[in-house]
Amino acid sequence: MSTPIKLTVIGAGSAQFSLGLVKDICLTESLSGSLISFMDIDPDRLDMIHKLGARYANELGADLRFESTTDRHDALQDADFVINTASASSHQKQRDGRELMEKYGYYHGGRMRQSNFVNLDLMLGVTGDMEEICPDAWLIQSGNPVYQGCTLMTRTSSIKVCGLCHGHYGVHQIARTLGFTDLEDLTWQAPGLNHNIWLTHFYYKGEDAYPILEKWIAEEGENYWETHVAERTHDIQMSRGTIHMYRMFGLMPIGDTPRRGAWWYHTDIDTKKWWFPQPWGGPDTHLARPYFVENLEKRVAQMTKLTSDPSTSLIEAFGSEKTHEQQVPIIDGLVNDNEGQFQVNVPNHGALAGVPDDVVVEVPAIVNRSGIHPIRVDPLPRKVLYTQIMPEVLEMERELLAFETGDRSLLFLDALECEQTHSYNQALSVFEELMEMGGNEKLSEHFMWGPGQEMLRQPVRTKEPA
Amino acid sequence: MSTPIKLTVIGAGSAQFSLGLVKDICLTESLSGSLISFMDIDPDRLDMIHKLGARYANELGADLRFESTTDRHDALQDADFVINTASASSHQKQRDGRELMEKYGYYHGGRMRQSNFVNLDLMLGVTGDMEEICPDAWLIQSGNPVYQGCTLMTRTSSIKVCGLCHGHYGVHQIARTLGFTDLEDLTWQAPGLNHNIWLTHFYYKGEDAYPILEKWIAEEGENYWETHVAERTHDIQMSRGTIHMYRMFGLMPIGDTPRRGAWWYHTDIDTKKWWFPQPWGGPDTHLARPYFVENLEKRVAQMTKLTSDPSTSLIEAFGSEKTHEQQVPIIDGLVNDNEGQFQVNVPNHGALAGVPDDVVVEVPAIVNRSGIHPIRVDPLPRKVLYTQIMPEVLEMERELLAFETGDRSLLFLDALECEQTHSYNQALSVFEELMEMGGNEKLSEHFMWGPGQEMLRQPVRTKEPA
Repeated sequence: MSTPIKLTVIGAGSAQFSLGLVKDICLTESLSGSLISFMDIDPDRLDMIHKLGARYANELGADLRFESTTDRHDALQDADFVINTASASSHQKQRDGRELMEKYGYYHGGRMRQSNFVNLDLMLGVTGDMEEICPDAWLIQSGNPVYQGCTLMTRTSSIKVCGLCHGHYGVHQIARTLGFTDLEDLTWQAPGLNHNIWLTHFYYKGEDAYPILEKWIAEEGENYWETHVAERTHDIQMSRGTIHMYRMFGLMPIGDTPRRGAWWYHTDIDTKKWWFPQPWGGPDTHLARPYFVENLEKRVAQMTKLTSDPSTSLIEAFGSEKTHEQQVPIIDGLVNDNEGQFQVNVPNHGALAGVPDDVVVEVPAIVNRSGIHPIRVDPLPRKVLYTQIMPEVLEMERELLAFETGDRSLLFLDALECEQTHSYNQALSVFEELMEMGGNEKLSEHFMWGPGQEMLRQPVRTKEPA
Repeated sequence: MSTPIKLTVIGAGSAQFSLGLVKDICLTESLSGSLISFMDIDPDRLDMIHKLGARYANELGADLRFESTTDRHDALQDADFVINTASASSHQKQRDGRELMEKYGYYHGGRMRQSNFVNLDLMLGVTGDMEEICPDAWLIQSGNPVYQGCTLMTRTSSIKVCGLCHGHYGVHQIARTLGFTDLEDLTWQAPGLNHNIWLTHFYYKGEDAYPILEKWIAEEGENYWETHVAERTHDIQMSRGTIHMYRMFGLMPIGDTPRRGAWWYHTDIDTKKWWFPQPWGGPDTHLARPYFVENLEKRVAQMTKLTSDPSTSLIEAFGSEKTHEQQVPIIDGLVNDNEGQFQVNVPNHGALAGVPDDVVVEVPAIVNRSGIHPIRVDPLPRKVLYTQIMPEVLEMERELLAFETGDRSLLFLDALECEQTHSYNQALSVFEELMEMGGNEKLSEHFMWGPGQEMLRQPVRTKEPA
């Protein structure tokens, strides 16, 4: 028995993501008969995805229909589920920003986040359209910033929103490194905020596995850190930096967590290579990023080739195993009551103690026909709450306040408070140039100085040293 | 009609404070017949204060009794009110710490606050004793850190606590600079946390006075900042830095507020002289601090001289006007129902929206026989709440958690997160040396590394640049 749905994918041009989704839905019998509507602003990419998706489903003999459009309104018509994976910020533009900041002494962009704003704007556009066109559909937010974006959307719209991310699979990487072969015998919890989650429970075959991790650190850690060569830029789960954060804060940080916070791991490439694996020093370096983007481009080229060569078996090219993505299983749970437990990003409402109700947290949830039900997890230790979670709640509130009010001085404050800023004048120079950068016209128009704030644009004039 | 009380002063050796208190109580008829008990660990200073206080009261013909003791238990016996103005951290020790940090590149101590811990310990000693000896007495906390200390004491003891500070009188300095002659026609509110308060209301003769401040900034500000020479090291209320903070955050910061937060005003002496008045660049510089401490010592010397010369009129030396301190008027309100409005530090319980109930806030309060009644003020703007108030709530929680648990890595985290720290190794070196510094034995014993944390003490070993 199956229940056909209409699933709309916004930002469907992200080839790997969309084809993974097609695979998962093809291999989910209970969604047979469904319509997948691809939407993207890039018509060529859209055409490619449409063709490959339809061909793959055909090869598998799956009963699915496909459509594609560059018009978001059309795509949302009669949608039951909307997956938003779009980003309004290109790799190129992010690189331009990083290069500009490099000039002023910030390593790899100094982790400023002005590029979030264009994506928040995009997200509000989607929920706005959905309220009009498909107000009962679920929105599965799969593009960044998941945490800030889902908080904003759930505060300002009536659309049901669930944010997803892969970061929590870092737990599997720990398990594999420790030699745990039966991942189905693993139980764990890692609640927090998206990209800021902490392993509170970690059991293997019913036994606490933290002591096994301790043993690994004591006996193998140093050797691993000295010799391990990463295969992927993002392979940092067992790195020296991640274990160091565990020592500092008391719980293992999972997935993308070691990429944020704790500025001292990220000051320069030599330092990054101390904390994160060779050859890249983690995903956020001038070595890793071009390699990562190049790989994405290679994959697109490969798919373009596949599109133009109808004789190749796509089953052979992509395999016929489900991915580990949660989107389709969650949809299946909601539609067909195939209940499961997932790691989701939803408004807190008491699931994670100490965090306000209207902040989106990342927690485990039971998903079934009656909805997405976050599990009320054990509280995080106060040390993690006060030093890692709540400071980022405040950062998010600042970011949403800036977005809502268009107060340029709040963005400037981010530049001032960036850990790599060493003087007022440095922050002022980089900020003014960043706002004037090509491609930031919309940003620059939205964020305005207030009355009297010309004083903020005046550099410090110290007397010349005698 | 008068109600005699017993008032105990802990840390009474602070000459100026204790004599101000004597003055105020002498000039408050309704407290006539009271007993003032001076307590300090310095018997010489105690003797001087006792003699000067008794002589001054005698000259004025005030009906007061005095006693002095180095034993806190004795001093607390039958106390109705306890004023704690003691500090367990000497100027000399603070200077040693600053000098040590200077070596590692931190200007004027880099604003680390490990010296708070000895005072928190002292405060808990006082509330512990009071619970045993005088459980119904009010504790008026007048020594720093008022904010962290009062939060700690009200969370852990049953003693009634009210914290006081002078900082809010900065509003009068604004008024005087703007030429407001009748300060009794001024109404204002400046709520927040101690040393972090913001002028939300500012009326003179019933008119909003913020526009008058705006006019002053536009017409006189630049000239004032270029030419003004401070008379006191702490004279920063109308400085360029304070007005800059007003421009940045939208409300005037009052009193000591511009001394905290916003690291970029405090990086070096040249920068400080840009933001704060000549000749010292504000109170927290290597020029101001010795001058300030020297002045305190001069005042003690002057008092010692007065003690040894019974022919001098103390009324002539000290005057016979009440001080602006709030301690005695608050006591008078509580004892004799002489109701008044004061600026107090008490647990929030809804007075200041957005701040948790069990955090001590600085707010106006009505004081009368039935108690200290905080006024529920208008909320602070979200910008001030998210960028200035709540980050300091989190810092306080971290500090109290560190104090409670003795977790040394939380102190180390402060060193790492200090705005003047530029590398892990720098923070590690300065922190390890600071903990070993003479006089920090108790601190070093209380704060321990946890299991496995030896990894945190390992410096970063980057490869030599090629």
